[in-house]
Amino acid sequence: MIKINENYLKLEASYLFIDIARRVTAFTDAHPEREVIRLGIGDVTRPLPPACIEAFHRGVDEMADGATFRGYGPEQGYAFLREKIAEHDFKSRGANISADEIFVSDGAKCDTGNIQEIFAGDTKIAVPDPVYPVYVDTNVMAGRTGTAEDGRYAGLCYLDGTMENGFIPALPTEPADLIYLCYPNNPTGATITKDQLKVWVDYARENRALILFDAAYEAFIRDESLPRTIYEIEGAEEVAIEFRSFSKTAGFTGTRCAFTVVPKACVAYDSKGEKQSVHSLWNRRHGTKFNGVSYPVQKAAEAVYSEAGQQQTRALVDYYLKNAALIRREITALGFECVGGENSPYIWIDGKRDSWEFFDLLLEKAGVVCTPGAGFGKCGQGYIRISAFNDYEKVQEAMSRIRAALAE
Amino acid sequence: MIKINENYLKLEASYLFIDIARRVTAFTDAHPEREVIRLGIGDVTRPLPPACIEAFHRGVDEMADGATFRGYGPEQGYAFLREKIAEHDFKSRGANISADEIFVSDGAKCDTGNIQEIFAGDTKIAVPDPVYPVYVDTNVMAGRTGTAEDGRYAGLCYLDGTMENGFIPALPTEPADLIYLCYPNNPTGATITKDQLKVWVDYARENRALILFDAAYEAFIRDESLPRTIYEIEGAEEVAIEFRSFSKTAGFTGTRCAFTVVPKACVAYDSKGEKQSVHSLWNRRHGTKFNGVSYPVQKAAEAVYSEAGQQQTRALVDYYLKNAALIRREITALGFECVGGENSPYIWIDGKRDSWEFFDLLLEKAGVVCTPGAGFGKCGQGYIRISAFNDYEKVQEAMSRIRAALAE
Repeated sequence: MIKINENYLKLEASYLFIDIARRVTAFTDAHPEREVIRLGIGDVTRPLPPACIEAFHRGVDEMADGATFRGYGPEQGYAFLREKIAEHDFKSRGANISADEIFVSDGAKCDTGNIQEIFAGDTKIAVPDPVYPVYVDTNVMAGRTGTAEDGRYAGLCYLDGTMENGFIPALPTEPADLIYLCYPNNPTGATITKDQLKVWVDYARENRALILFDAAYEAFIRDESLPRTIYEIEGAEEVAIEFRSFSKTAGFTGTRCAFTVVPKACVAYDSKGEKQSVHSLWNRRHGTKFNGVSYPVQKAAEAVYSEAGQQQTRALVDYYLKNAALIRREITALGFECVGGENSPYIWIDGKRDSWEFFDLLLEKAGVVCTPGAGFGKCGQGYIRISAFNDYEKVQEAMSRIRAALAE
Repeated sequence: MIKINENYLKLEASYLFIDIARRVTAFTDAHPEREVIRLGIGDVTRPLPPACIEAFHRGVDEMADGATFRGYGPEQGYAFLREKIAEHDFKSRGANISADEIFVSDGAKCDTGNIQEIFAGDTKIAVPDPVYPVYVDTNVMAGRTGTAEDGRYAGLCYLDGTMENGFIPALPTEPADLIYLCYPNNPTGATITKDQLKVWVDYARENRALILFDAAYEAFIRDESLPRTIYEIEGAEEVAIEFRSFSKTAGFTGTRCAFTVVPKACVAYDSKGEKQSVHSLWNRRHGTKFNGVSYPVQKAAEAVYSEAGQQQTRALVDYYLKNAALIRREITALGFECVGGENSPYIWIDGKRDSWEFFDLLLEKAGVVCTPGAGFGKCGQGYIRISAFNDYEKVQEAMSRIRAALAE
């Protein structure tokens, strides 16, 4: 008899975005004359940079001609892309990452979801709260948790983020083997300094733990003192895997290209306590279950590293950062405490009331959609997330509506 | 302490293609003047159909304009593509599959590799031998086997394919929960009739088993009596998941688009013996660990179903089928017994000697690269696979060289 993986039955139904959609639909049905401005989901709205479009077209043209046609490529990605990534994103920052330590993929969501497979079933997992739900759900599916109660799964170690600690959690008080960190953070927009990140790297080294560092939003860092990669921290290559994406850097959410860095120095242990290469394990997983990213997409991603591509992607990120600064300024002027909005596209606001209550207020009085913080975990209760991914004029309009709504 | 998934240590090193590459390199180093013709790996060589190229370019152009730009799409694929698949590939064959039962992905390799996650850890797995290695390796990684001995993993049920049974194995003699089948078969090129497939569907229904039906090569079927989809068999929608790909149909091996069909009627069981929806489980898995296929790639795939696309992909497949027929004709004339090469791009040849010995003979005497059958499992010993994926002129030249080599 074919039986299911019963761990799936432990998953809490993902009500957050369904609930948001339901409330927005109810509102628009009731008020068809009112335009809703969406600052909820973290999806880009601006077109791909021209350099990427040109390279994308050239890649497609190559597929039209037998002389330049490409069939299966290397599962880990083409050298032309991996080499540029190593050079521009790592070596230029003093991080000694080589091309063969980079695994090109179709998304950071896939990679952050799949990576747990190469570790033991009884791995003790630590996740931040608030948290990107994929980190949690993929470990629930793999059987590393008990059931959920009050929004928290038994067996997981939750690292509380609060306004007091600036959403940089304290080290775990119980032993943790695999630690998910994300900076600039989704959903809070918080950033981490080198000294703060060093605390985590040192912890991992001392405790033979491993850090999964999600840096999907690193392109939003403008403060040169902040680390753009965890490998700027000494010794991180032994204890950290880093996830990156072209989604937010270059507007690739619908184009799909990302990469994961697994340094050859990175180790985990077998049951005899012997060191094992995490790079070899991931390489085997990647080669067995993945067949590479579309060739024209890799060409488009490569163009991010051209001179024009660098200028254009910087301008793209600057555009959203201008939105973020405006949101942060307006929200602060209204007397709210917030984090993010600097070096990040997200503004995380202490609403001083229930998350959903604030969500409803902004929707009904201002016609603005945000994301209730409670959807990201227990520590998100009382907060909302506003995203800077929209046109500047829409953000201006949204903020002026919020101002009016709250003045009522 | 971070520990590895020790099941990975059970994996036999994948020597097959490494070994092939090593031997080919040694040969070309020794004989730089001789041109090697590659009929080994199953990778297409002809350019994408013009209809796909045009649609691909239009998709890229849409990404260049804010008014038509696409960010995150539905994880399961765009309706425009899913609806065409349902209509053309299933409803037109009398198979009642709807658009929301189709999950668009970036490859059948990924899907056939990932699908086992939604089933229990103690699922009894049956695989054909010879076998596409991904079916086996992903179950080894998930801990459903013991270690390997003599090329076979403990705990797996191997279904022997032989020249006598035409590489359509007999039903398992021990209970099996999850059964991998692939027709037209990789690597043997064997096809299955409706009556033969019905035996498996009936077995699954009677034993509450589930069939994973890999139909990546269905476009090569020209015999109208053969099933193009397992859902042509009555009751299959309750007991079968089907995998399809644009890789071999339309030359998408480097472009990356495929799909998996999970009917809503398909059931598995929980530990209480209650029915559970496999569609819901896969939908959850897909939505949690995947973020959809690149939008321009989905547009290119959609064009396969246009009138021009249908003509062009048929011509593309016909081209390879002409190669296959030539290989089959020549090999048969040389006195070898073979299967495949009709309704399939692969010709599976009984070499009447060790697989690697025949491989070396063809490489050294004819400068032709094939794949030794032993690389696909114990039952592959004594066979070689020749692939029809190359230019017709090269295939002609390869066959004339093989003829000469064997006449020596």
